[in-house]
Amino acid sequence: MIATDARPSNLIGAELAEIDTPALLIDLDAMERNLRTMADFFADKPAKLRPHAKTHKSPIIAHKQLALGAVGITCAKLGEAEVMVEAGVDDILVANQIVGRAKIARLMGLLHHARITVAVDDAANLRDLAAAAGAQGVELDVLVEVNTGMSRCGVEPGEPAVTLAKVAADLPNIRFRGIQAYEGHLVGIADEGERAARVAAAMAPIVATREAIERDGLPVGIVSGGGTGTFALTGTTRGFDEVQAGSYVFMDGAYGTVGGVGGRFAQALTVLATVISRPTADRAILDIGRKTLGTDQGVPFLKRFGRSDDVTFEGFSEEHTKLRVAGPARDLRPGDVVEVVPGHGCTTVNLYDRYVAHRRGVVEAVWPIAARGRAQ
Amino acid sequence: MIATDARPSNLIGAELAEIDTPALLIDLDAMERNLRTMADFFADKPAKLRPHAKTHKSPIIAHKQLALGAVGITCAKLGEAEVMVEAGVDDILVANQIVGRAKIARLMGLLHHARITVAVDDAANLRDLAAAAGAQGVELDVLVEVNTGMSRCGVEPGEPAVTLAKVAADLPNIRFRGIQAYEGHLVGIADEGERAARVAAAMAPIVATREAIERDGLPVGIVSGGGTGTFALTGTTRGFDEVQAGSYVFMDGAYGTVGGVGGRFAQALTVLATVISRPTADRAILDIGRKTLGTDQGVPFLKRFGRSDDVTFEGFSEEHTKLRVAGPARDLRPGDVVEVVPGHGCTTVNLYDRYVAHRRGVVEAVWPIAARGRAQ
Repeated sequence: MIATDARPSNLIGAELAEIDTPALLIDLDAMERNLRTMADFFADKPAKLRPHAKTHKSPIIAHKQLALGAVGITCAKLGEAEVMVEAGVDDILVANQIVGRAKIARLMGLLHHARITVAVDDAANLRDLAAAAGAQGVELDVLVEVNTGMSRCGVEPGEPAVTLAKVAADLPNIRFRGIQAYEGHLVGIADEGERAARVAAAMAPIVATREAIERDGLPVGIVSGGGTGTFALTGTTRGFDEVQAGSYVFMDGAYGTVGGVGGRFAQALTVLATVISRPTADRAILDIGRKTLGTDQGVPFLKRFGRSDDVTFEGFSEEHTKLRVAGPARDLRPGDVVEVVPGHGCTTVNLYDRYVAHRRGVVEAVWPIAARGRAQ
Repeated sequence: MIATDARPSNLIGAELAEIDTPALLIDLDAMERNLRTMADFFADKPAKLRPHAKTHKSPIIAHKQLALGAVGITCAKLGEAEVMVEAGVDDILVANQIVGRAKIARLMGLLHHARITVAVDDAANLRDLAAAAGAQGVELDVLVEVNTGMSRCGVEPGEPAVTLAKVAADLPNIRFRGIQAYEGHLVGIADEGERAARVAAAMAPIVATREAIERDGLPVGIVSGGGTGTFALTGTTRGFDEVQAGSYVFMDGAYGTVGGVGGRFAQALTVLATVISRPTADRAILDIGRKTLGTDQGVPFLKRFGRSDDVTFEGFSEEHTKLRVAGPARDLRPGDVVEVVPGHGCTTVNLYDRYVAHRRGVVEAVWPIAARGRAQ
């Protein structure tokens, strides 16, 4: 059987060696273990899991997370949330600001079909949202985004956050629900002790801000933060209610080296690639590159050789990966198929239209990456 | 009018400020000038232009290039070539090795519908191709890929290349047509004099290899190389027949700084982005990031401010770009829409499903990026 990109239904029942490359594979056993491991962690914690769907962009995986106890789904983009709502997900945090007339109109439309919470960090934006919600007769839940030290979006902790919370609480058709505080600059710190200390230091002002808002008489229902690198830290910080980890579903090369995290989850996502050239004894070229592998973070590796020195990733071009090979990796020949664990899962998934999901090497499902490209 | 991603036909006639973001824009006047500038250069040269479609992945743009005199189209991937053939392009160089049973079967199928030339650098691969072509009763044109010093795919110049050319020429159903020799490691050298010297040094062994093959009695019809940074060098090197430049159609931030190249072509590709947060006086956040902007090469800039110091790109996350703003850029407000010239056009295009093509700010067409995702 020859299975090509254009005829994905032909793939069911195929073995990996029969799949044309590049292809994005999910090891279902590994993914299901990852989903259970994270669900089990939060089963007895006060904080709850709201997994970030930016990693998988797939409604069927979101539903698996909800079935295991997640309180809802996090999305990065309104377009991702639209895809999830269309697939029956009904409680979504869009963990970003929704700005501009076109997007606000789409958000209001979506509110008729699901509960959507958004991040806010600007009073004028809040007034725009309130006016649009009023015109549509809907209520919008908002989290005030507070800077954890990542210094991306968000108001500063303390008085600026309290002030914006009051603006939100006073506006019609807006429900102030709490705080978003994502420590994205800390999730990748390899050393577990250093990471714990930095998270504690970063989150203290966030928790103090929560308390200040509550002292002002505004109930705070949700403080949301945390990633795959910090779920066990932020997720056990008193005053945090929700964790928005995403990458754990698949893991990746970057998180694999993060202490206390890499060992808990299995590498469930690989890119199937073909050796297309062996020009010298120590050089092998794969048919993947920057258009098929997220190369912005972490170091990829070949699953067969692990992180051994036998294979060194020397460089990427758009459609090529250059490997330096030694030892047994010198036996790689043109036509050989290898599984590459990406350095960064999220940006890798964003390059593909579908997953080829297999169980112990036999294809079980082909799933559209339904929210890929939904960047608006 | 509110124009969203999901209803692209609504966009025709819209002004840029009405378009939801992120969106990938083509300035049609600028693109058409670029296409004519390159066509004019080759009009009186012995070498001909075979533009690389990996940049635009769009059949309508390929047809515009052919209408202006291009001898055919170059593709990186067989999947791109399939899309082009389906749109009526009938002479394509797939500038890479086609390896593996699934892909060879697809190539043979395509040969019934168009002339396809592929690169080869391995005798066993050549024999696989010949056997498949024989079984299908088709003839396959091949170029022997020769290393220019980029050290990616390709045999070494001289004897190894001559030997492989003979293998190709002796095989049934294979037509040896010539050499592919792409100097990708030189196209981005900023200094024009240094670039010229390096190209001359790299191409001398290629031309000598051509002559050695011809001395052995094998006619060499095509020696193909060159990119947007070297079209005027490689394209005027005696012994070169075809240039496979691609990026010139749109230009980008990286090529914009390459001496003698940036000034010839206009920036025709931009990403329309929204300022979603202004957390501090000197920080502005855009709603684009590594999932919507090719950040692997070059430095992007805001079209409105050019390469001025008023805007510094400080960092990218998946869906955010962090700008440090000074001077008049401090007036940027949440909701403002800006055009970003990407550092790397090719990897940016690869992230989008469609172009919004405008003429002087009024949308004229929405074109699918038909070969996006066709990485197989």
